[in-house]
Amino acid sequence: MNIKFKTLEWKNNQLILLDQRKLPAQEIYHTYQTYQEVGLAIKDMVVRGAPAIGVAAGYAMALAALKSEDLLQAATYLKSMRPTAVNLAWAVERILKLRSKNPQDILNAAKAIEAEDVEMCKLMGKWGADLIENGKTYLTHCNAGALATAGQGTALSVFYEAKRQGKTFQVISSETRPYLQGARLTCWELSTTLITDNMVAHLMKLGKIHGVFVGSDRIAANGDVANKIGTYGVATLAKAHAIPFYAVAPTSTIDLKTPSGEHIIIEERPPEEVTHLHGIPIAPAEINVFNYSFDVTPHELVSAIITEKGVAKKPFSEKLRGWLK
Amino acid sequence: MNIKFKTLEWKNNQLILLDQRKLPAQEIYHTYQTYQEVGLAIKDMVVRGAPAIGVAAGYAMALAALKSEDLLQAATYLKSMRPTAVNLAWAVERILKLRSKNPQDILNAAKAIEAEDVEMCKLMGKWGADLIENGKTYLTHCNAGALATAGQGTALSVFYEAKRQGKTFQVISSETRPYLQGARLTCWELSTTLITDNMVAHLMKLGKIHGVFVGSDRIAANGDVANKIGTYGVATLAKAHAIPFYAVAPTSTIDLKTPSGEHIIIEERPPEEVTHLHGIPIAPAEINVFNYSFDVTPHELVSAIITEKGVAKKPFSEKLRGWLK
Repeated sequence: MNIKFKTLEWKNNQLILLDQRKLPAQEIYHTYQTYQEVGLAIKDMVVRGAPAIGVAAGYAMALAALKSEDLLQAATYLKSMRPTAVNLAWAVERILKLRSKNPQDILNAAKAIEAEDVEMCKLMGKWGADLIENGKTYLTHCNAGALATAGQGTALSVFYEAKRQGKTFQVISSETRPYLQGARLTCWELSTTLITDNMVAHLMKLGKIHGVFVGSDRIAANGDVANKIGTYGVATLAKAHAIPFYAVAPTSTIDLKTPSGEHIIIEERPPEEVTHLHGIPIAPAEINVFNYSFDVTPHELVSAIITEKGVAKKPFSEKLRGWLK
Repeated sequence: MNIKFKTLEWKNNQLILLDQRKLPAQEIYHTYQTYQEVGLAIKDMVVRGAPAIGVAAGYAMALAALKSEDLLQAATYLKSMRPTAVNLAWAVERILKLRSKNPQDILNAAKAIEAEDVEMCKLMGKWGADLIENGKTYLTHCNAGALATAGQGTALSVFYEAKRQGKTFQVISSETRPYLQGARLTCWELSTTLITDNMVAHLMKLGKIHGVFVGSDRIAANGDVANKIGTYGVATLAKAHAIPFYAVAPTSTIDLKTPSGEHIIIEERPPEEVTHLHGIPIAPAEINVFNYSFDVTPHELVSAIITEKGVAKKPFSEKLRGWLK
């Protein structure tokens, strides 16, 4: 399974991003020359997925350095664009820690973040593929694939690797309202079977789902997993049907400074994402809306956390801390 | 709270239906003169909601009688349009039992079905309103309102009545993919707060939902509740958060011939309902889709079943059987 698109690419001192808002209808690439533009592209979800945001933010810092901008100011600006994804802050801070304003130093660091992401995706996939069984069907929510990383994804990397190993299995995507990352992105990337989010429970009851693999935007020190809205519901339903639930993310997603999920800021996005689709209203005007973009799955509901370093089972705290030493 | 639209109306020996596919953008009414047209309107979801479908089917039988059509053939045709909603078969069979071909007899029976529906909605609302507490927030899924009945609804009738009694509370609608009955219809009818289906679990965890009221398309003899896809997931999540879950439906929805939910045929609808919205593709072409239109909530997850005759708690079987004597 080769990946036929480039989520992000550094070329001629510019950052090129695949505009994921236009998928699956159009495959359009934009070129960015300033960190502010990249920041807005992150906010507007041209690029999304916690690891890909981290890599893009690294290159945004390189653009800031190339233009001799104030790096501290650039860092603050970039971090404010998506508050839930820890990789964004992680990448920006990793570059600040260089204590260098030299564009080449910073570019090298950004490239290292990208190269590590590619490598980590492969490793996560290999660890996770051991959990895939022939003849089974797995659910994934949102898009934790090549579109969400610089490599072959986190949760979807498990499927890429298992297929490479010759395993035969099916994958179902929940469409992931309101932004439809499952329908638009995961189905496009991996030709998965599509269901609406509210069909998950019924399929689990029918015995048509044997495991769940999702990515993560932030993992707290106790193993609580922040991920795209709807993940917590899927995890609760998996538990009720005795189906294993796996979170797959690089160790850069683990935030030891956050003791538990209660401390994670949950981004709320504009109501129009819920009330409109392609600019067409699907609800009456002036209606009240909640639009939480993420939720937190308590570690009790997580069967295992898979990172590039291995598979952690409960209790998570010690293993997660060990990985980050 | 007055209802400012007419879901269905019999006038000049014709049936007028509000085209619910066009809501909330447009309020358009169509006039039908043959049972076949009404059958297609039921299939195409011009009219939807189990009780409203039952009333429309009654009038479709009256149209068949007025045109001296074969009533048995008309009945078979109408029943095939939506296999899950028992009220459709119930209304058609009630008319067949008259053993009359006289149009006036059949029209009177159809009018009686409508009048009873109006009355039953009020009674369900009154029973259910006792369960509404000031200052609380309730979730409803799909549309079980005036748009789903000839009266003021089933689940939503509870809210209409509680407001009439001066109670203060909030209502949240889950959008109900793929057909968006929550977003398009319930929000239009009752100005509820809108969320995506996958936000339910997160709101429950935040303590923002204190009870769930839904309608039903068929209730088995043991109290298993068939309703719009997503209902079973909501009920499972409600149980996990110790939130009461209520099904509200007239006793005509109870099907004693169906011993349990496993025996209920679950309608599957075209994949385009999932992959397209307003004709615009939201997923890649040629993708596999599951589109189950209903699911079954096992009676274990149901706190109470509310009908025009009262409130049934577990065990349901005896109470349900007693109501139908």
